[in-house]
Amino acid sequence: MPEPKDPSPGRVEFRTAPERYRHWRLAVDGPVAVLTMDVDEQGGIVPGYELKLNSYDLGVDIELYDAVQRLRFEHPEVKAVVITSGKDKVFCAGANIRMLAASPHGWKVNFCKFTNETRNGIEDATENSGQTYLAALNGTASGGGYELALACDHILLVDDRSSAVALPELPLLGVLPGTGGLTRVTDKRHVRRDLADYFATRPEGVGGGKAVRWRLVDEAVPRAAWQQTVAERAAELAARSARPANGTASGIELTPLPKSGTDTALAYRHVTATLDRGRGVAEITVKGPDDEAPAAMAGVHEQGAGFWTLAVTRELDDLILDLRTNEPELGTWVFRTRGSAERVLAHDRLLLGNADDWLANEIIHYLKRTLKRLDVTSRSILALIEPGSCFAGSMLELALAADRSYHLAGIFEDKDPDAGPAEITIGPANLGPLPMGNGLTRLQTRFLGDDKALAAADKSEGEPLTAEDAEQLGLVTFAPDDIDWDEEIRIAVEERASFSPDALTGLEANYRFPGPETLETKIFGRLTAWQNWIFSRPNAAGPDGALRRFGTGQRAAFDRKRV
Amino acid sequence: MPEPKDPSPGRVEFRTAPERYRHWRLAVDGPVAVLTMDVDEQGGIVPGYELKLNSYDLGVDIELYDAVQRLRFEHPEVKAVVITSGKDKVFCAGANIRMLAASPHGWKVNFCKFTNETRNGIEDATENSGQTYLAALNGTASGGGYELALACDHILLVDDRSSAVALPELPLLGVLPGTGGLTRVTDKRHVRRDLADYFATRPEGVGGGKAVRWRLVDEAVPRAAWQQTVAERAAELAARSARPANGTASGIELTPLPKSGTDTALAYRHVTATLDRGRGVAEITVKGPDDEAPAAMAGVHEQGAGFWTLAVTRELDDLILDLRTNEPELGTWVFRTRGSAERVLAHDRLLLGNADDWLANEIIHYLKRTLKRLDVTSRSILALIEPGSCFAGSMLELALAADRSYHLAGIFEDKDPDAGPAEITIGPANLGPLPMGNGLTRLQTRFLGDDKALAAADKSEGEPLTAEDAEQLGLVTFAPDDIDWDEEIRIAVEERASFSPDALTGLEANYRFPGPETLETKIFGRLTAWQNWIFSRPNAAGPDGALRRFGTGQRAAFDRKRV
Repeated sequence: MPEPKDPSPGRVEFRTAPERYRHWRLAVDGPVAVLTMDVDEQGGIVPGYELKLNSYDLGVDIELYDAVQRLRFEHPEVKAVVITSGKDKVFCAGANIRMLAASPHGWKVNFCKFTNETRNGIEDATENSGQTYLAALNGTASGGGYELALACDHILLVDDRSSAVALPELPLLGVLPGTGGLTRVTDKRHVRRDLADYFATRPEGVGGGKAVRWRLVDEAVPRAAWQQTVAERAAELAARSARPANGTASGIELTPLPKSGTDTALAYRHVTATLDRGRGVAEITVKGPDDEAPAAMAGVHEQGAGFWTLAVTRELDDLILDLRTNEPELGTWVFRTRGSAERVLAHDRLLLGNADDWLANEIIHYLKRTLKRLDVTSRSILALIEPGSCFAGSMLELALAADRSYHLAGIFEDKDPDAGPAEITIGPANLGPLPMGNGLTRLQTRFLGDDKALAAADKSEGEPLTAEDAEQLGLVTFAPDDIDWDEEIRIAVEERASFSPDALTGLEANYRFPGPETLETKIFGRLTAWQNWIFSRPNAAGPDGALRRFGTGQRAAFDRKRV
Repeated sequence: MPEPKDPSPGRVEFRTAPERYRHWRLAVDGPVAVLTMDVDEQGGIVPGYELKLNSYDLGVDIELYDAVQRLRFEHPEVKAVVITSGKDKVFCAGANIRMLAASPHGWKVNFCKFTNETRNGIEDATENSGQTYLAALNGTASGGGYELALACDHILLVDDRSSAVALPELPLLGVLPGTGGLTRVTDKRHVRRDLADYFATRPEGVGGGKAVRWRLVDEAVPRAAWQQTVAERAAELAARSARPANGTASGIELTPLPKSGTDTALAYRHVTATLDRGRGVAEITVKGPDDEAPAAMAGVHEQGAGFWTLAVTRELDDLILDLRTNEPELGTWVFRTRGSAERVLAHDRLLLGNADDWLANEIIHYLKRTLKRLDVTSRSILALIEPGSCFAGSMLELALAADRSYHLAGIFEDKDPDAGPAEITIGPANLGPLPMGNGLTRLQTRFLGDDKALAAADKSEGEPLTAEDAEQLGLVTFAPDDIDWDEEIRIAVEERASFSPDALTGLEANYRFPGPETLETKIFGRLTAWQNWIFSRPNAAGPDGALRRFGTGQRAAFDRKRV
């Protein structure tokens, strides 16, 4: 395993651990954890800017993501998490502006996507894990700093006549808040849209009683009562959690994830990826469990991070983040699986049958979040269902998440004449516990508006389906046979590489989310697309644009035409 | 390919009439109308391209919009509308590509917005007017041509081994279908997302039985049975309409709309606009009814296009389209009203109390569509509520559609010491019949998640509310008094003009549509934003981009990085 190198010329690495944090402190005291943001100004992930005033870059957010994950797995006793600042008078100034101004468009977009996912993960912990987040704004929270607070369940703001919350992106930078701020202000906190409009044009923000009246924060607390109020609220939030009582459960350690890499491959224990730069393809193979599922959850607790479902999810999670960030020219991801479908289903059953076990619950939701990451990944996704694969239950979600799937009809006569035909199997994991961001399962999304087809698919649960059956049920896109297989896949991959990468990103962002919308899909679909557009316009990113001119003392020169 | 030029040396005019159509023929035969697209190749609205293969530009779509409107008002007897082509073997090739390649970004976006609104209007006629649209694709429908078909309730495709439906934008042009195609394919026609993906990568499209099986069209009909099948389906669709029987109702003529203009003003009978280019503001004043409302609907039928609500709606509609297209640098629209609130409410009551009258129904839905146009207009909207105004009922919607409203507390002591204070009044028009694209009323949208505030507002129905009451109820944004008024408005307007126009567009597109999403909001919010982004990227619009290279024989040169 080579050491992570400088990320811009080298490779960005998402694996970290608390002992290596430069920007956050994690302190656990019984049921309450405190996550203190104390950004090291000199600790930017790439050179060229200082992270002043608790502003952040990707490196800061990688640590936050790690902390949020570890709290869920390593600290079953933690029921409330306080996010606060280690600086005087400032909570967080948001994403670093010089970093944004200096970054290529793709870096900005990918950075925003990851920060969005981490904030959605905070909301997921609050909603599904009994770990409720409390934002303790001991100073001004501006831009992404306020957006981080918006991801928390309860927001306390110190009432000292200077501290405020603000979304200054529009007046100062000519862009939008990039981490869900606009959507959460109206759709989550229900700030009235005209007040929200006014708020987003005030660089200095809103504090005190007005911030409470406008619903921007939940409480404005005098400094004298600050420590006590934060402690009280944290205790109240902790009290409503169903997580195990202190001392009754042991966390499992998220041990360092083994990963090796060359210029053309990445390998984990269960997941490997071949990086084919010529064809612009990452060929990803996910291996099913080596062993039978434990007889009961005790075995899972014992295996800890080695338990297959958790291990494979961590590997997939890291691979998605790595490829997104480090391999933007690999525009197509081809998924294969290998292994025993029955073992995959048995692992699923064990977890789903014990969803009241805190660890089973965590693993299921982590798998859910990781599959959601795939859904919002701007890469074309193909699934190849071949003999020896294990597209069943949780692993079938990979094929259902794909833009297209190809299921071999029969076997490869030359390569392996004795193989059984490729089969897929719907399991309970496909019928509810792993919803997409739109709130529907991938099967419901697939058969939107076609209840008959959905019912027929559901009814096949547990039956191994050959290509003919799967195609008939609409579960796979195409079912070529041995003779056509290579040619059809080759054409699909080559064709994808010949299309406009931008148009593919837009196509997939639309097609993957038919049907209902949620806070999440609005953030990734609507808000992100507007932000992408604005980020790529001369009024923001051009040499005279607001983003580039910020801090120079010169005002931006705008083309005033409304588009 | 020549450099993009200004497409409109003069002023684009949206007012037209069938006798002036160059591209469409409208034939009415009892309950069935036939709209035949037969585009004049030499009839482009700006020079520089030929409208081959029934491809269209803004001029073609202006005529379509006019026809759809006239069918509703002038032809109460028409219950089904067949859209077909006057060309051999081609239905419509979509938006003209050379026009798109040569147009500035803003022109393309505004053009797509208008075509989207016209297609939504077709669906509105089907849903709310008993005029059901049937697409009779007597040849290939490609890109925007297929998207026009998607707006119809039923799609017939001739089955002749060569005719197909297609969305070739992605493979040929490196952009997305710009008129709702992606959203309607999945969310309206419920094409499976992986098949939709495949379909959108085939420039040649899909025809015959496969197009039916994939739900892309409703029927594939052999040429021999074509005429008869089209006639039968049209008759069946007409039979389910609740519009008046043939001969029992007379349409009202949409007489030419009087409009005068100078370089600094536009004036209609009830609506005037001052164009202040220095401040980047259009000051719009809407006058209430000059006369009392007729005692019954008979009076409305008699007044026809002169009836106040219809007249003012037509004027607003034309003004919005004119300013959007011709005045992109007027980034802020300031709305005032003048007149009798009681008369506005009486006109509303007359229409809403007779919604089973076909004309009342048409006027209400037309007002609804016009207000929706305002919601998706990329201009900042302010409403100024001053003494002598009539922000009541339907006219109050203008203030509720605004990004911010200012309600004068008291009167202007110097200007008009004898005036009564400015008041607003909620009426039945605010409580249901004029929903936004998100399916909610503007009041429901305003008070999203705050049922108590919504109930309090509803309860005030009929009560004239002063600034203090209105602010208390959350119905206006700010309520400055005489002393602060001028300064506060001046600052709001100047500040708006100082911000990035792109960021404002994105901000407003997000804040105006909190809460639920519909086909319409997905098209305007999500799909449009992605399309805007793609249209502004070098991979599409750059000198080596797909849009600019189309037809040159050269392939586009793509930056392959996925963003």
